[in-house]
Amino acid sequence: MQIQLPKFEFQKLISRSHTIGLPPGQLVHHGKKHAEKTRVDLIRYSDVEYDEQLNGKIDELLTNISPDKINWLNIDGLHNIPLIEKVGTRFDINSLVLEDVLNTDQRPKVEDSDGYLFFTLKTLNSLDKDQIIYEQMSFILSKNYLISFGEKEGDLFEGLRNRLKNDPKSKARKRGTDYLFYRLIDTIVDSYYLIVENIGERIEELEDEVYENPTPTSLKKIQTLKKELIYLRKSVYPIREAISKISKGEYPQIKKETERFFSDVYDHSIHIIETLETYRDLTSGLMDMYMTSMSNKMNEVMKVLTVIATIFIPLTFIAGVYGMNFENMPELGWKYGYAGVWGVMILSLFGMIYYFKKKNWF
Amino acid sequence: MQIQLPKFEFQKLISRSHTIGLPPGQLVHHGKKHAEKTRVDLIRYSDVEYDEQLNGKIDELLTNISPDKINWLNIDGLHNIPLIEKVGTRFDINSLVLEDVLNTDQRPKVEDSDGYLFFTLKTLNSLDKDQIIYEQMSFILSKNYLISFGEKEGDLFEGLRNRLKNDPKSKARKRGTDYLFYRLIDTIVDSYYLIVENIGERIEELEDEVYENPTPTSLKKIQTLKKELIYLRKSVYPIREAISKISKGEYPQIKKETERFFSDVYDHSIHIIETLETYRDLTSGLMDMYMTSMSNKMNEVMKVLTVIATIFIPLTFIAGVYGMNFENMPELGWKYGYAGVWGVMILSLFGMIYYFKKKNWF
Amino acid sequence: MQIQLPKFEFQKLISRSHTIGLPPGQLVHHGKKHAEKTRVDLIRYSDVEYDEQLNGKIDELLTNISPDKINWLNIDGLHNIPLIEKVGTRFDINSLVLEDVLNTDQRPKVEDSDGYLFFTLKTLNSLDKDQIIYEQMSFILSKNYLISFGEKEGDLFEGLRNRLKNDPKSKARKRGTDYLFYRLIDTIVDSYYLIVENIGERIEELEDEVYENPTPTSLKKIQTLKKELIYLRKSVYPIREAISKISKGEYPQIKKETERFFSDVYDHSIHIIETLETYRDLTSGLMDMYMTSMSNKMNEVMKVLTVIATIFIPLTFIAGVYGMNFENMPELGWKYGYAGVWGVMILSLFGMIYYFKKKNWF
Amino acid sequence: MQIQLPKFEFQKLISRSHTIGLPPGQLVHHGKKHAEKTRVDLIRYSDVEYDEQLNGKIDELLTNISPDKINWLNIDGLHNIPLIEKVGTRFDINSLVLEDVLNTDQRPKVEDSDGYLFFTLKTLNSLDKDQIIYEQMSFILSKNYLISFGEKEGDLFEGLRNRLKNDPKSKARKRGTDYLFYRLIDTIVDSYYLIVENIGERIEELEDEVYENPTPTSLKKIQTLKKELIYLRKSVYPIREAISKISKGEYPQIKKETERFFSDVYDHSIHIIETLETYRDLTSGLMDMYMTSMSNKMNEVMKVLTVIATIFIPLTFIAGVYGMNFENMPELGWKYGYAGVWGVMILSLFGMIYYFKKKNWF
Amino acid sequence: MQIQLPKFEFQKLISRSHTIGLPPGQLVHHGKKHAEKTRVDLIRYSDVEYDEQLNGKIDELLTNISPDKINWLNIDGLHNIPLIEKVGTRFDINSLVLEDVLNTDQRPKVEDSDGYLFFTLKTLNSLDKDQIIYEQMSFILSKNYLISFGEKEGDLFEGLRNRLKNDPKSKARKRGTDYLFYRLIDTIVDSYYLIVENIGERIEELEDEVYENPTPTSLKKIQTLKKELIYLRKSVYPIREAISKISKGEYPQIKKETERFFSDVYDHSIHIIETLETYRDLTSGLMDMYMTSMSNKMNEVMKVLTVIATIFIPLTFIAGVYGMNFENMPELGWKYGYAGVWGVMILSLFGMIYYFKKKNWF
Repeated sequence: MQIQLPKFEFQKLISRSHTIGLPPGQLVHHGKKHAEKTRVDLIRYSDVEYDEQLNGKIDELLTNISPDKINWLNIDGLHNIPLIEKVGTRFDINSLVLEDVLNTDQRPKVEDSDGYLFFTLKTLNSLDKDQIIYEQMSFILSKNYLISFGEKEGDLFEGLRNRLKNDPKSKARKRGTDYLFYRLIDTIVDSYYLIVENIGERIEELEDEVYENPTPTSLKKIQTLKKELIYLRKSVYPIREAISKISKGEYPQIKKETERFFSDVYDHSIHIIETLETYRDLTSGLMDMYMTSMSNKMNEVMKVLTVIATIFIPLTFIAGVYGMNFENMPELGWKYGYAGVWGVMILSLFGMIYYFKKKNWF
Repeated sequence: MQIQLPKFEFQKLISRSHTIGLPPGQLVHHGKKHAEKTRVDLIRYSDVEYDEQLNGKIDELLTNISPDKINWLNIDGLHNIPLIEKVGTRFDINSLVLEDVLNTDQRPKVEDSDGYLFFTLKTLNSLDKDQIIYEQMSFILSKNYLISFGEKEGDLFEGLRNRLKNDPKSKARKRGTDYLFYRLIDTIVDSYYLIVENIGERIEELEDEVYENPTPTSLKKIQTLKKELIYLRKSVYPIREAISKISKGEYPQIKKETERFFSDVYDHSIHIIETLETYRDLTSGLMDMYMTSMSNKMNEVMKVLTVIATIFIPLTFIAGVYGMNFENMPELGWKYGYAGVWGVMILSLFGMIYYFKKKNWF
Repeated sequence: MQIQLPKFEFQKLISRSHTIGLPPGQLVHHGKKHAEKTRVDLIRYSDVEYDEQLNGKIDELLTNISPDKINWLNIDGLHNIPLIEKVGTRFDINSLVLEDVLNTDQRPKVEDSDGYLFFTLKTLNSLDKDQIIYEQMSFILSKNYLISFGEKEGDLFEGLRNRLKNDPKSKARKRGTDYLFYRLIDTIVDSYYLIVENIGERIEELEDEVYENPTPTSLKKIQTLKKELIYLRKSVYPIREAISKISKGEYPQIKKETERFFSDVYDHSIHIIETLETYRDLTSGLMDMYMTSMSNKMNEVMKVLTVIATIFIPLTFIAGVYGMNFENMPELGWKYGYAGVWGVMILSLFGMIYYFKKKNWF
Repeated sequence: MQIQLPKFEFQKLISRSHTIGLPPGQLVHHGKKHAEKTRVDLIRYSDVEYDEQLNGKIDELLTNISPDKINWLNIDGLHNIPLIEKVGTRFDINSLVLEDVLNTDQRPKVEDSDGYLFFTLKTLNSLDKDQIIYEQMSFILSKNYLISFGEKEGDLFEGLRNRLKNDPKSKARKRGTDYLFYRLIDTIVDSYYLIVENIGERIEELEDEVYENPTPTSLKKIQTLKKELIYLRKSVYPIREAISKISKGEYPQIKKETERFFSDVYDHSIHIIETLETYRDLTSGLMDMYMTSMSNKMNEVMKVLTVIATIFIPLTFIAGVYGMNFENMPELGWKYGYAGVWGVMILSLFGMIYYFKKKNWF
Repeated sequence: MQIQLPKFEFQKLISRSHTIGLPPGQLVHHGKKHAEKTRVDLIRYSDVEYDEQLNGKIDELLTNISPDKINWLNIDGLHNIPLIEKVGTRFDINSLVLEDVLNTDQRPKVEDSDGYLFFTLKTLNSLDKDQIIYEQMSFILSKNYLISFGEKEGDLFEGLRNRLKNDPKSKARKRGTDYLFYRLIDTIVDSYYLIVENIGERIEELEDEVYENPTPTSLKKIQTLKKELIYLRKSVYPIREAISKISKGEYPQIKKETERFFSDVYDHSIHIIETLETYRDLTSGLMDMYMTSMSNKMNEVMKVLTVIATIFIPLTFIAGVYGMNFENMPELGWKYGYAGVWGVMILSLFGMIYYFKKKNWF
């Protein structure tokens, strides 16, 4: 099996370096183009009605924003800069914020900017067990609209959307955009648990592998785990701080009654971070265990060599002595000379075996 | 002997991941079902009277709560969600708090929520020396009732209950629910000492084993200890902070005169944490010692090989020389040729032994 | 290929030690003379006009400073002390500040000094992939002038200058010296990304090299990387603190509306620092991997030796036995004696191979 | 020589675990009974008079406390619980404090409790160089009395008592109980220097031993040192914080003019802690040095083996070739065949020696 | 070359331990007697006059203190306790401060004590490259006098004294004792750079040595460096804090206008500390490199052994086979038997060489 160490996404960094000297707020998409097409959805609802315009045209959707409902505008795909600019103009969003929205390598943070709340974080996904996909997700929250920006289409929020649509009595229908915002963030943070579980299982498997039968591949797997934990930490740590700020009521966009829910999300984020710390300790323990296992195997190899060499080298010497061609070697003529030599050699063999037994080498 | 590395309780994490996207306060039991049956007890007392309804029916018990006595409602078993919901409704408990009560992987914390105090922590138990059982325990404290939630039936509080029942002059009978709450927490924190002792003894035994006769099994034992200390730390650390908050008088549910007792519990929790830190240092010292012991043993093996090979390889060469079949090898015809060769070989043997003695290899 | 470990720039330290006991503010250039000639440029602009006097005479330029425009005085080359002193006298700059300007080993910092803002930091450049060039850059900012001091001529700000010149509608033309100052700092901090990318790529290459084919040269490369990360950290860390102070509005020279832009630079500096931390973890992981790879190779060497020795030493012993010259060795006369010995030897060979296969040594 | 790793005092922990569920303030002596008999002394003095009642009866002494003098009641031996209870009742000491006095595993701390100051710490003693004896010492300080509790009789304060008795002009006679308290604490902290010196000397000796002639015993000694430093740290660290609180004037029992002296004690405690930190670094350096010395020795052993084997194995092969029994081996009949072989072998020997010399293996 | 690990100055600690139980402020000289004679100098100056009484008598000098000039009293040699006491009495210095002056193992600190400022720190000197000499230096600063105490005569301040004497227009002559105090501290901190450079050079040399040709001596040198960095850190770290306090204006003895200069010294102290941290990282990198180099050398040794043994052991076996004395070994009679064996052996030799080439062992 071929294991791949996770690679840096240098494209991001490189495109960043192309902007040196550009004035601030110049919109450039940093990152790979994930989605071929940009997809825009508008969902409007209140406690009595709900309608959705999925995969619509941006100009149309922007005129459909209705100030007396809760408007959730979802944009998947960040490479369509004119579209993003239109949204920016319509909602009067600061160009530095738009720049952060477009930068898929942005550090998670929360900001109160000209009356709206800006929040950006990573969503984590894993197609198969060994690969985590990081996607940048940004939110802009105001009194009656919430805009979410994702790198590509995803179905993370589908369950939530269905509930909004089908259950007019749900809390979400009765509360404001801030509650909707909480539900989205909560969904993302909960989805981290899947990744964390996945890693926990891989640590457990590796532990058995390293203890039973360590190979150079195990080393690569440990190293890969370590790197993934380093990246995960970098992505998840700043979220805690951001959510802590929200739950402490620093932002007027979040109502007092919703802060309580963010405290709950905050607890989850701490739980995830502590679990990652635990995994870090376990992984560095794995490395120690691997090295000690390797050196145990080495010890065993050396013991085999030493036992064989120590037994046969003296015997070979004895045989060599009686292979000499001196003219007067009296032993050669003795009747039981040959048998005697065999006796001496067998005695010496048992002596050695006894010695090694006593030294606990078998 | 077969040693098992402690396993992650993935069931907990997995069931957590099934709740992604669920609205908050949706009650789901996270964790294994420990108790077949849920058991509910109600204990009511004042300084003059005491009565207990053990293993009663929840509806009956809930109507028996009497506002002019101290009511201690104890619930063992968290999988009976309708029961928990009834309790929640009766005492008007926030659904987010109930969610935390049901989550057996909850991080220890204290919260002031709508007039009552919520406290959750882990109890530790060890059936045999090598296994620690973690159980989630939650408390809800109000002016005249205290509810305790445990994962399964336990006898940790039996001594306390007997004293309450039989000794009408005890402090506990005269004081309020906050003092009862203190006594329960104190009992739990004191029970940590048993686990800590247990680990201390295992470290001591391992120290002797690693120094006297390190084997690959010792490595596994050290690794197991390390993991247990990592989990213990994760469970015990947050308790300190929670108790510190209580002892500083942040919560109105705790009377001024009871805070003093919580300071004492706080001292104990610090003592336990410092001991765990000490154990962590000792365990990582054990690992170093193991590795050095292994490499000392390796050194010894190599010395044996080197001594034997260095002594016999030259001797075998000499024997080989006189085993050659050249026609004119004058030594072969000498009278004392054979004896001379033996002389040379014995001299060379003693030379080697002297050399190794000087090098301190024996 | 000859790899060079980065050297300390002791000249700096040595020249520093020559000033022991000198009174403060005595101007001495600490560092190498990079530029043969000192170059001075004056750029004056407002929202309506722009003129530049490149490579001019200092006395002339100083008289050309016009209080109703934005004046940017750029000085490349720090060894011309009389020139620096003239500038100091003209703008009434504290001699301790001038001393810091001249010290090319100065730690990055920001200071409010007698009405102007003093900021000093490092610019990073890399001619080729394996060498980072550190240059000290200082700024003095007042209401209507900005002075920048560099060690030697560079083209880092050329793009910015062209935009200022050619685009009269750009923001920069409409805003004050503090905005110009922000643009210069932003350009420098953005240029760090190039260095960081460069190092990321080298880590990636080394990772493959260490895993595929570790050589002593790999060790040197890892050590070089480690040293570079240590120096980078030392240069970049203090910048974060300095920019944080600016963005928090501690300095009256920075207008409220410009602080927002410095928050953005602050985010970038944190991003760079976190990436450097990540690289540090990766590099120390590389070292572990190198050591483990080396010991894996050693294991393999030992196995080859052990397999060969363990197979042939017993066979040689058997051959030796029948090379003995005893008179009555009945086997020698047997018809199938020779074939029998071959049989025994071949059986023993296969036995050994089976044993090693079972031990997984091939 | 038999070296003993320091053992945990499990008795303490075990007796602690027997108290699970006991109500607070239930007096139980935690720890070994050091003193066969409990000894009680009362010293009363003012600037004009001094009298002492050594080894008196507790009831008598308690009635002799005179409010217009300074009373120092010294109790050695903590297992006599009725005696401790009498003292507690007489001076109205909180039962939680008495519990801490009796617990010989108590973490150092200072507390203001119902009008008196409670201070508890460890005294350190070393009978011989390799063993440190920890003893719990507690103080209760009020306006006109000071009670000191020790585990067993000691002569640490004898010098101070003599000075009090014989020198009526000493500062101590003129000042209050707080000054006496300072002198006792100062004496204890100064006595830590003896232990610290002792450890410093042992580190120095070990350094020479590890560099000159490392043995497995050295490893045990290093490990013992490490453990002792871990315990020492645990005992000494909390003292710093406690004394810091006192010197900052948090306690009304300490007069303004005495705080100054506690600052001095605080400096000493920091000095001791920094020295312990230094020792920790040195000890972990010792471990590195030991491991590297061991692997240097291993290298040397391997070189001897390699040199011998590399020289003689090819020579033995040559001898083996001419020991073959082929019928037509022309060399065997050559006149100088035998001498030629010797020539070849000697040339090969010198070639090898030259090669090893060049490789710097001798 | 014989390298000496730096030794603890136990004399200091030991003499400290002799003072256990002594009342505070009892003057005892802690440390070695450096100076045979104590030397006292008095320098008095104002902006118009300057006179110096070098190596004078203490009683005379003390009467010569003139309140309308700046008086700098310099005392070299701390073992003359009556002299120190005279100074203490004359200037009314607290006995705890005098105790600190005499203690040459005192931790650097600053204190405001009864109207004067007390500052104590270490001066560093290096006679040759491999040895750093620590000397305690204390200052007592008041409005019109400055007293400096050193362990022995030094010429660190000679340059400063000459400038004071010869340059009546220098700043120092116009400003107060606080400026003089700044100049002395600045001179001491600047002199640290020499030591830091020295260590930087040694690290660089060691790096080359460890990479080119590591020997056990290199290990000792690394260990020595590590110890020196540990001591340096301990001496230099507290200075930063002390100077920070001064530069923040906590002490009335320092005028507002002089604080600025102390900020500059503070920057230098931070620069030195960061460089020491860098050196610490580099030194621990050196240790890693040493260990890896040693294990690389070991690998090389093992490869030589394995190559030789693997080539010749099978060949020797073949020769052994045809050295057997069986009667009917048909190969022995074949015409090209002998040549054929040679052919087989040479083929096997080339096979081995090809195998090792492929494995990259040459």
